[in-house]
This record gives sequence, C-alpha cells and structure tokens, in this order.
Amino acid sequence: MTYNLIIIGGGPAGITAGIYASRLNLNTLLITKSFGGQVAKKAVAIENYPGFESILGPELTKKMEDHLKAQEINIEIDEVGKVEKTNDNFLISTKSKKEFQAKAVILASGADPRPLEVPGGKEFIGKGVSYCSVCDGPIFKDKTVAIIGGGNAGFETAIFLAKIAKKIYILEYGSDIKAFEANQDVVKKIGIVEIIKNAELKRIEGKKFVESIIYKDRKTKKEKTLSVKGVFVEIGSQPATSYVKGLVDFNKNDEIKVEFETCHTKTPGLFAAGDLNVGRFKQIVTACGEGAKAALAAHNYIQKKK
Amino acid sequence: MTYNLIIIGGGPAGITAGIYASRLNLNTLLITKSFGGQVAKKAVAIENYPGFESILGPELTKKMEDHLKAQEINIEIDEVGKVEKTNDNFLISTKSKKEFQAKAVILASGADPRPLEVPGGKEFIGKGVSYCSVCDGPIFKDKTVAIIGGGNAGFETAIFLAKIAKKIYILEYGSDIKAFEANQDVVKKIGIVEIIKNAELKRIEGKKFVESIIYKDRKTKKEKTLSVKGVFVEIGSQPATSYVKGLVDFNKNDEIKVEFETCHTKTPGLFAAGDLNVGRFKQIVTACGEGAKAALAAHNYIQKKK
Repeated sequence: MTYNLIIIGGGPAGITAGIYASRLNLNTLLITKSFGGQVAKKAVAIENYPGFESILGPELTKKMEDHLKAQEINIEIDEVGKVEKTNDNFLISTKSKKEFQAKAVILASGADPRPLEVPGGKEFIGKGVSYCSVCDGPIFKDKTVAIIGGGNAGFETAIFLAKIAKKIYILEYGSDIKAFEANQDVVKKIGIVEIIKNAELKRIEGKKFVESIIYKDRKTKKEKTLSVKGVFVEIGSQPATSYVKGLVDFNKNDEIKVEFETCHTKTPGLFAAGDLNVGRFKQIVTACGEGAKAALAAHNYIQKKK
Repeated sequence: MTYNLIIIGGGPAGITAGIYASRLNLNTLLITKSFGGQVAKKAVAIENYPGFESILGPELTKKMEDHLKAQEINIEIDEVGKVEKTNDNFLISTKSKKEFQAKAVILASGADPRPLEVPGGKEFIGKGVSYCSVCDGPIFKDKTVAIIGGGNAGFETAIFLAKIAKKIYILEYGSDIKAFEANQDVVKKIGIVEIIKNAELKRIEGKKFVESIIYKDRKTKKEKTLSVKGVFVEIGSQPATSYVKGLVDFNKNDEIKVEFETCHTKTPGLFAAGDLNVGRFKQIVTACGEGAKAALAAHNYIQKKK
C-alpha cells in the first residue's frame, strides 16, 4: 500500500505536521525514533511557547505527543535509513529494514548535537562528558563543571545546573556572547557561573573519569587548565539529513534548502520543516508553524496529483 | 523617547512577537484594539494548536494574553491610524491621536471579516445578519439560519450553531467545498445542515428583521428563496493593512508581501507576521511561528543598527 504522506520525525515540527495531516484526512505514517526531539531534553523550563507561561520540556513533549496520538495516524518507532524517489512516489527504508511508500514526504527529523572533536571528547562520554544536562546533571551535585558553548543552549544548561553544581564555567570560542539577553541576565544573577570568552577547547584529561580541561586563550595564545568533573557539550547541532542526499539541496551546514512559505524542497512532494532546514530561527513555535505549513502544502500537492 | 520595537496587533502573531521581543530585552510597545484577534471569536473548539487537544478560542486567547502580560512589555489599547517612516525611525499615530516612535515595527493586525455586499447586507446587521456566531448564535435558538460561505469558517460556524439552530443552510458560491475534510465529516454527521453549492446570494429581505434570503443558482440561473431568521457571514477576511500604504507591497487581496524566512517587508525594519501577509496558510500556529521569526529578525535588525 502507498500512504498519502510519510512524516519523518517526532519533534514539534513532525508532531504538528501529523496533527494537521490527520485532520486533513490524509492517510499518514509518522516514523520516529522517539517523541519531542530536542524539547524532551530541554534543561530549563520553556517560557516562549505561546500559551504556556512556563513548562518543562518533557511535559510539553507529553502534551504534544498525546495531542498527536488522539488523531487517526499510523506511528512507526524506527529510524529512517534512506529516502528515494521511485517513479512518482517515495520509497522509505528504515534501519530495521522495513520499507514504506508514500505520495509525499515531510522531513522533520531535526538535528543532533554537534560532537566535540578534541582528544578525550569521545573517550570520556559517560565518564564526565555529557550531551544531555537533564539526563546527567544530577550526577554532578556540588561539583565543578564546564559548559562548552556560550549560545542559548549553553546558557540554559548553566541555568539548569545552577541548582546542582558548585561552580560552572561557560567556555565560548568567540569574543561575543550570542545567547538571548534574558538568558544572560539570569546567568548573571546566579553568581556561580564564570564566562570565559575566546576559549578554544584543546583536550579533556583524566584517569578513569574527567579531571580537567585544557583550553587556549585565543587572545593571549596561552593554554590554561580548569579542574572540572563534568563537561557539558552545547556547541550547536547538525541536521539529521544524511538519509535524503540527492533529493534536496544543502547549505554548507548540511541544512536543507526550502521555499519558506510552504517548506517545499527542490523535489516535488518532498518538504522539510523545523531544525533540519536552512531557516535561521530554530525555535519550538517556528518548528510547529513550519510543520503546519508543510502538511497543508503536502495536502495541496496530493490533491492536485489525484 | 524611541522604542526599540512597536508591534501592531494582539492576535497570535502579535502576542508571540511580544513574548519573544521582551525576552530579547527589546524595549517594546504593543498596540492593539483587543487581544486574541480572530481566535477570540472562534465558534468551535480549537483542536490544531499543538499542546492543546481541544481548547475554546476565548480560553486560548486568555492563556496567550496572560503569557504576554507576564513579560516586561508596554501595552497600549488603541487602534493604529498610520505608520510612517521618519529618517531612520518609524512614526506611528493612533486613532486616539497619540504618537509613538520606534526603530523597528512588526505589523500583526490580522484581518477583518469581508463584508457582504448585497442589498440588506448592511441594513440588517444586528437584525439577523451577524459576523460573529459566538456572540450572536444563542439568539437563534430553534430557528432556521443561513451561513454564507462554505470554507472552513463557514463549516465551523455550522458546527457551533448545530447545538442551537433547528436547521442550517450553508451557501457556497463555488462548485467545490474547500473546508477541511475533518470539518466536512462533522457537518455531515450533524444531520440538520444543508449545503447549497453554486449559490450566489442576491439580497436579504425582511420587515424589521431578516425573514428570507434570495440566491441565484449559478447552474440553472434561477433565483430561489429561503426562509431564515439569521444570516452568518463567513466569506473570508480582508487584511487590516490600509494604515501602512506606501511602505509595503500588496498582492491583489491587499495582503503584504514578505520574505517568509524573516517576515521582512520591502522596507528595512518593517515586518509583517500572520494573517495580513501574503502567506497562503493562515492558521493560529503559523501566525505564532511567524510572530517569533519577525521578532528575532527585528532583534537582529536593531542590533546591527546600533
């Protein structure tokens, strides 16, 4: 059988696309590893999704997931391996070797954290190096930790860890802090956070577990050592788009080029909504908006195809 | 004094822009007649705003309004008369003759219902002709009513009135029904709704109050009369954009042309989010997404200007 629509991804963009598609009576399959995307791992309360003054990531994820599952929609918990075009339809194969066909596809698999490419970065994962403060934060009670990355994610991680850690360093490679002013204000008030700009992380050291990090001060060119037990990596994300090569155009960050009114890619019937497209603003509510637009545009595309 | 940003409109797009702008520490003024825009008048429960499986329009409006007012933001209850460019800033004058200046402006004043241009259409407003089923619906308990317009708004009005009226006609000018399938399914099940396609409304008649409507069947060219006590007008909306002429480009429906990644209009520093721009998908969540994008883009614009 051929679905009308397959949605890849269960974050805000994919969930919203799913809600819309099922309400548009499209016979839809949503394939995802899990629900919530990066929202589920959010370290601090979300205060900018309209309608919820303050809500925890897992709680908002649950509400959106329940909203999706209240619709008539097919859900497959799996990871997509490849998207291909076959004649007029799309063929999607998953990591667990299942195959599905659809008339239209919405890519909404978001982005994964960008990994730390320094000695020790990989070796100490689970031994002090963490990509998820919500998961691992509590381990570092009354310890000193470093956050690599001074963007919004880094500052939000600091805000979350402030209630747990004894002392927090934020290492920012650039000479400017780009986190939202609201986040900077909160971090200032916490008192235990030290922000180090122009800091290029060189390596992570320790015996069994992380004991210290070494960074180069990009102004003085001198290397410095900080004693820390934990390293939280928040240096941005890379879109989960490798499975769709050949069908879309990418920018230099592997983000998918789209026409933003409809989220249509260069391949007719193939849409990309949320963090994996080239859009410069990556927010929960913008991902939701794009998910809705992609589903409505996919509906129009399918209607015309009939 | 000059504000960083003035937001015009208090619907989903304006509210979201306000939440984002204040969290970005922009000194912001939001000018609006009222809150919620068309959401506040929604006839049926909203079931496609992610996170709320089913919520009434006034309730969602209240949540969004409270969310906005929890921020540090200046609010002026007024209607904008004109937006002008003065040197490098914008000058905004209101109907109550106040003037405000800002470095950047987000237009988010949405759209008003398109009026019925037939004899009786104006004369019987408040005497049977209504533009707000939530406000006026209860007057028509156990009466026969007609809804002009077979789009989503018309179908949603029928769903709302189904619990009140004895019999409902939906008159659609075209030969196709364009309402979402989900809405069509619900209307079918109601049983008391008769859909008349190819119906061109000619006039509304009555002594003191509406007694009948006369439409032409566009296929048979014959005029027909329906006895009704109420006429609900749902023939679309027209953007509230006349106050900004000269600074933006319009399409033939008076909608403002924007670049959709940022909602930027052709005038630097002037953004347009939500129902008043040319975007073809006009949903609550798409308006919110655009409001967030416009605020983030306005923030970038203001930072560069400094």
